Amino acid sequence: MTVEPMSVFPLVLDSSASQPPHVVIVGAGFAGLSAAKALAHSAVRATVIDRQNHHLFQPLLYQVATAALAPTQVATPVRAILRKQANTEVVLGEVIGVDADRKRVQLTDREITYDYLILATGARHAYFGQDDWERHAPGLKTIDDALALRNRILLAFEQAELEADDAERARLLTFVVVGGGATGVETAGAIAELAKRALRQDYRRVDPRSARILLLEAGPRLLASFPHELSAEATDAIQRLGVEVRLNTTVTGIDAASVSLADGKIATRCVIWAAGVQASPAAKWLGARADKAGRVCIGGDLRVPGLKDVFVIGDCAHVAGETGKPLPGIAPVAKQQGVYAARVIDAAIRGSVVTPFRYADRGAMATIGRKVAVADFHGFQLKGFVGWLIWCAAHIYFLIGFRNRIAVTLDWTWSFLTSERGGRLILGNPSTSTSADAAREAA
Amino acid sequence: MTVEPMSVFPLVLDSSASQPPHVVIVGAGFAGLSAAKALAHSAVRATVIDRQNHHLFQPLLYQVATAALAPTQVATPVRAILRKQANTEVVLGEVIGVDADRKRVQLTDREITYDYLILATGARHAYFGQDDWERHAPGLKTIDDALALRNRILLAFEQAELEADDAERARLLTFVVVGGGATGVETAGAIAELAKRALRQDYRRVDPRSARILLLEAGPRLLASFPHELSAEATDAIQRLGVEVRLNTTVTGIDAASVSLADGKIATRCVIWAAGVQASPAAKWLGARADKAGRVCIGGDLRVPGLKDVFVIGDCAHVAGETGKPLPGIAPVAKQQGVYAARVIDAAIRGSVVTPFRYADRGAMATIGRKVAVADFHGFQLKGFVGWLIWCAAHIYFLIGFRNRIAVTLDWTWSFLTSERGGRLILGNPSTSTSADAAREAA
Repeated sequence: MTVEPMSVFPLVLDSSASQPPHVVIVGAGFAGLSAAKALAHSAVRATVIDRQNHHLFQPLLYQVATAALAPTQVATPVRAILRKQANTEVVLGEVIGVDADRKRVQLTDREITYDYLILATGARHAYFGQDDWERHAPGLKTIDDALALRNRILLAFEQAELEADDAERARLLTFVVVGGGATGVETAGAIAELAKRALRQDYRRVDPRSARILLLEAGPRLLASFPHELSAEATDAIQRLGVEVRLNTTVTGIDAASVSLADGKIATRCVIWAAGVQASPAAKWLGARADKAGRVCIGGDLRVPGLKDVFVIGDCAHVAGETGKPLPGIAPVAKQQGVYAARVIDAAIRGSVVTPFRYADRGAMATIGRKVAVADFHGFQLKGFVGWLIWCAAHIYFLIGFRNRIAVTLDWTWSFLTSERGGRLILGNPSTSTSADAAREAA
Repeated sequence: MTVEPMSVFPLVLDSSASQPPHVVIVGAGFAGLSAAKALAHSAVRATVIDRQNHHLFQPLLYQVATAALAPTQVATPVRAILRKQANTEVVLGEVIGVDADRKRVQLTDREITYDYLILATGARHAYFGQDDWERHAPGLKTIDDALALRNRILLAFEQAELEADDAERARLLTFVVVGGGATGVETAGAIAELAKRALRQDYRRVDPRSARILLLEAGPRLLASFPHELSAEATDAIQRLGVEVRLNTTVTGIDAASVSLADGKIATRCVIWAAGVQASPAAKWLGARADKAGRVCIGGDLRVPGLKDVFVIGDCAHVAGETGKPLPGIAPVAKQQGVYAARVIDAAIRGSVVTPFRYADRGAMATIGRKVAVADFHGFQLKGFVGWLIWCAAHIYFLIGFRNRIAVTLDWTWSFLTSERGGRLILGNPSTSTSADAAREAA
């Protein structure tokens, strides 16, 4: 791979022999950030590159989209997190390639040299090749995604309030979530509670409680990665919230006015995609082998085969678990891989080696609305209200920043007691979108 | 004025004789909202139209722009505020005209008939005819304005961190606030504290404390509407924060790289406009007489001369105060006018009249940074830390919504103790803006 000479990041490139090795970490999600933190006391210089200035607590992003939390409560500036880590710096920039031969990361406007590279660039939602669906069925990966979705959901109620045509009003009040994994279940539950509780007294011409929320899952059950009993519990709980669950249901088309299924159409103006992800182009940058979700196939030491200085971790890595199936794209896997990659580098510098990566699976959780969650800790299962309290505690515990923990705790307590939502802002220029004509135009 | 037939808002238009009179209020700022609330127990139907779905607590908007508060903490959905007021409904829509003959308000996509009309459509920042300045020197009127400015300020530090050229780095770290009224003083103080305290440890290549913050005022002193002693106190306090104050300084030009003055140029990438406002086009809609700031000249009963069913209140109204000067565009004036207009309508329905509007001036306050404020209560003056505590208490008291009051109190306490800022998110696609080349291109 040859590279055009570009403007060069001044100090980092000047890596004289006397300087400690330079570890470049691309991506400040759970994987990249945990790698950076684990290098705090290693004899390295570290640089964390992200195209956003904040670390996002992705598991709670759906709460921003459904107006329960503010963006600042689930996102923290990367600089603030790494402020006291003197051997680490943060670069806001977008990586567009890697020159593994010359050991350089290519950004849009500069290059940064590395001695070790950790790619933790994550995944985006993917539409099984139907890229035109994205426009009508946005996914949920960034704060901007969440704010766009929040606008869309809240605007639907505003438009319905002004709509004279019954069919169009029903269409506006129909919300379809595609994908019955944790994200889909949590999002559908949160929309149901928004409509049935938080908004219930706020309109004069429509009753938000009449909103239909559908959750479509292609497989035979929700939360397929959980034990069967918990899937059943979650299905029950979400149906009690008023969500219509359709299993074994494959989407065949999405446009601005409907979702097409094998056996008919659902008229809707708001579709939310929670059905699939595609890894970032790390494999392409490296010319490495990838699985069909685009994840780089890596070895037990999380290095890319043939590139001993390059690690791939988190949602863009394909690592076989103990059962032979790839490890899931969830925060605990990402964090443990980040710590492991840092340990391998630290050991390499000290001339030592570490045993292959092994994922310590401590279980999984999903919440359904304001009062119910399911949790699976390997045989020890929790559900219902107790499960929900554990879910709350765990998420608050893992939130970065003492301040956010307090703020989220207070907001959740408040919402629990009042069913209010504090984040019901429509931003941008909503009034020009209130006419159903505009929505139809978009079709 | 003739009107094209448009789709018509169904129920409201159908005003049979048996229905109570319909009061349409355009604008849900301090003026419009207080009018709506004051009509809660009147024998009317009220409709509040706003192009945003939220009421904005404008006096704290600069804290969103400087990452101290989240948007949701200074904005509350209009529907939520008026939820329990059964005689009132809320319409999200943009008013583009008034047909006073046929008593209809024209929205982009419908018309709404009224028996009484209250226009409370506020003001936007204005550039003394230099509209091309807006692009480079945004003002602060909406949440979107504040988020755009927050992006701009935070990005400047990110760009400076990556900038190799000394002159460009200095330019990026120079912030110019134009206008030495309360908004300008508060904004300049908040940027100074952001740079000198909240960000001080977060960068490795630049020292945010080296940022220059300039406050330009065309007149001979800051806070011209306050007594001289308080102006002097404010000037002292803001200089202690490190802000360079330039009085008697008129801006003659603004572009992407500098602000031009009579005696030279200031190289900067970030200019904030707090120097002047222009009223919304209410006067044009009504064909009414306006002052040079575009405010409708109205009588002592806040009605438009010749249109006895139309009231204009708040920042878009020109009402002479006791000294002959027009009342200032501040929240207390707007609120009192809203209550007054509601009283006039209520009296008219009951066949009664009220005495002319009289503004009860309870004083004014402005804050300078994290610890100092000045307050003038007619002879009784407060300044320094005590003034600041009073300022905090008053602003929290007037914030709408119990929940926001708690959240803001906690955030301020937290910030006071730690100098942290909770809202440091850059949204959109910041990484593509980090190159100074991009900034230069925009020039």
